[in-house]
Amino acid sequence: MELFSDEYYMNEALKQAEYAFEEGEIPVGAVIVSNNRIIARAYNQTEKLNDVTAHAEMLAITSAANTLGAKYLIDCKLYVTLEPCLMCAGALFWSQISEIHFAASDPKRGFRNKQADVLHPKTKWTEGTLAAESESLLQTFFQKLRK
Amino acid sequence: MELFSDEYYMNEALKQAEYAFEEGEIPVGAVIVSNNRIIARAYNQTEKLNDVTAHAEMLAITSAANTLGAKYLIDCKLYVTLEPCLMCAGALFWSQISEIHFAASDPKRGFRNKQADVLHPKTKWTEGTLAAESESLLQTFFQKLRK
Repeated sequence: MELFSDEYYMNEALKQAEYAFEEGEIPVGAVIVSNNRIIARAYNQTEKLNDVTAHAEMLAITSAANTLGAKYLIDCKLYVTLEPCLMCAGALFWSQISEIHFAASDPKRGFRNKQADVLHPKTKWTEGTLAAESESLLQTFFQKLRK
Repeated sequence: MELFSDEYYMNEALKQAEYAFEEGEIPVGAVIVSNNRIIARAYNQTEKLNDVTAHAEMLAITSAANTLGAKYLIDCKLYVTLEPCLMCAGALFWSQISEIHFAASDPKRGFRNKQADVLHPKTKWTEGTLAAESESLLQTFFQKLRK
């Protein structure tokens, strides 16, 4: 099987970023590779889809899972042109992806900036309303699962 | 206009969690409220959709943006039955949502657990491949935007 370099795959991610650019989206692109084959290509579509969750990485994760028919991206590699934000890093966590390669770093919103407050300064939050009811449902679920 | 309590909305979120439970999904439910009206209801569908990104909050954010025809959830409130994870907190950050109310806390995976590593221990990562090319594209984009 032909083997490609990290540069090759990152260049494919960059092509995706260029599509985003052409469409007036913040130009970030991503590809996901499994077994030396690109199984997902995506670019940022937050404007087009009117959806803050439509980052390149998120769309690529969903697309790769569809291609694999599996939720976990075991032995997969992500190539993305910008350091993933906390949302995307969180999604990548859940995906258990094997490797992440990013091009440009994002000191302000990148996942390594743990000092950043996770929530937006405009956002207030509370906890505890119906907590017992919710916990009970969760506990019942996992008790049932373990049986 | 009739006003409802936090308990009322959280109970609606709990109904969503119950739908998840019935379908064998980890039972987490969410609603988003705008102007005292529920504009999105969702429950965790990671199993059904085979997609780690399909948390209740993520689906609710996308749905609320569709209803509003707007990307930012200004003056909206989220009611969710479990403390959001980092992915969901990241998405909520981008949405600029006004209020977050969660029922049960999640000490292991909740967004307040900043000590947790953001990435999965199975996941390796690198940076820098084609960084200059990616940065150049981003810079050109934002220069164009500012003109």
